[in-house]
Amino acid sequence: MKRAIVLLSGGLDSYTAAAMVGTLGFSLDALTVGYGQRHARELESARAVAGALGVERHLELTLDLRAIGGSSLTSDAAVPRDRDLASTDIPSTYVPARNTIFLSLALGWAEVLDARDIVMGVNALDYSGYPDCRPEFINAFETLASVATRAGVEGARFHVHTPLIGMTKAEIIRRGLTLGLDYSLTHSCYDPAPSGRPCGRCDSCALRAKGFAEAGVADPLLPR
Amino acid sequence: MKRAIVLLSGGLDSYTAAAMVGTLGFSLDALTVGYGQRHARELESARAVAGALGVERHLELTLDLRAIGGSSLTSDAAVPRDRDLASTDIPSTYVPARNTIFLSLALGWAEVLDARDIVMGVNALDYSGYPDCRPEFINAFETLASVATRAGVEGARFHVHTPLIGMTKAEIIRRGLTLGLDYSLTHSCYDPAPSGRPCGRCDSCALRAKGFAEAGVADPLLPR
Repeated sequence: MKRAIVLLSGGLDSYTAAAMVGTLGFSLDALTVGYGQRHARELESARAVAGALGVERHLELTLDLRAIGGSSLTSDAAVPRDRDLASTDIPSTYVPARNTIFLSLALGWAEVLDARDIVMGVNALDYSGYPDCRPEFINAFETLASVATRAGVEGARFHVHTPLIGMTKAEIIRRGLTLGLDYSLTHSCYDPAPSGRPCGRCDSCALRAKGFAEAGVADPLLPR
Repeated sequence: MKRAIVLLSGGLDSYTAAAMVGTLGFSLDALTVGYGQRHARELESARAVAGALGVERHLELTLDLRAIGGSSLTSDAAVPRDRDLASTDIPSTYVPARNTIFLSLALGWAEVLDARDIVMGVNALDYSGYPDCRPEFINAFETLASVATRAGVEGARFHVHTPLIGMTKAEIIRRGLTLGLDYSLTHSCYDPAPSGRPCGRCDSCALRAKGFAEAGVADPLLPR
């Protein structure tokens, strides 16, 4: 059985992407990074999601990106609220080089596990305009992986699966529901209350709400 | 004054590379990663070298690559001794995706500091055959950096300086000595004794010894 490493955040996208790749016959291992994100609550969701997916291993790494800063997710700067999602500006929640760092870690683990497949729930449609969620980034990383590793030098080609990259949030949610996913396990909010309650106003909450609304289903995280 | 981020290990290569780029008029910041390497003693050397270079900031990050494993540098597997340096085999000291991970971290910090230059002491001549020390790897990373970051999307191009990549170890040492570098501050051994004393038999010790011998100077770390 082929093995794939999934970058699992605890949000609904990576959960759905993992489940979709699972249907292709891959055995899944999950990698989650505690990077000093203000919504560290998502790490608990990542554990719950990993359990629901039945991954073989769930590796949690800790890396203090607050020491690097440069983002409202890794500093005390305010997370933008009620932002125009149609804006092409890259918001302050962008974390410099985050997906490059995460994919590099997944690449190292993939090489050790003799896996050639990595799964990432990036989306370039209902998203915040982050540069490292776009197809050109994924393609450049795949090219890098083949020259960066012993496996690559020996002829292996790594593939980064991004099954959601061209889907709307509503399509993602509908697809996940047909796969029987339990979105009550997930966490999306960038700036939750200490209780864990979503703020409802950050990009991540807004995109989630738009997705559930367009899919015509209720978000199990919200009170009815 | 332009700013460059140097990946500083505590060995002689990154020290020399940093000093060489310093002569080009860059102000230097240093990034060192404690990744669970068995020769964690090199972190002390990195601090000493950072001081000698007069870097503006020295950021130390911790990342447990032992959890990923796959290398004799991050596990209890034996470090190879007395290896044939002419062999084209990639030895067990190769750490999967290490330089991809390190460059990604440097890229994130560079973006935050508004720097476009990263310095790495990789060498593809007197080296252990690691894939992520070769020009094709560096070129692929530069390409990735321009699509991975907000700065890249806005038109910035990142440059990874690798001034040592085509030099012999003897040439590196001679160059460093003309720049007044103090190699007694450095540490190279992969498998030092608890006292910090180099083993003298790992690749890193062997390459260092070859370099000093060919340069016709004594290694200040060794007893006369």
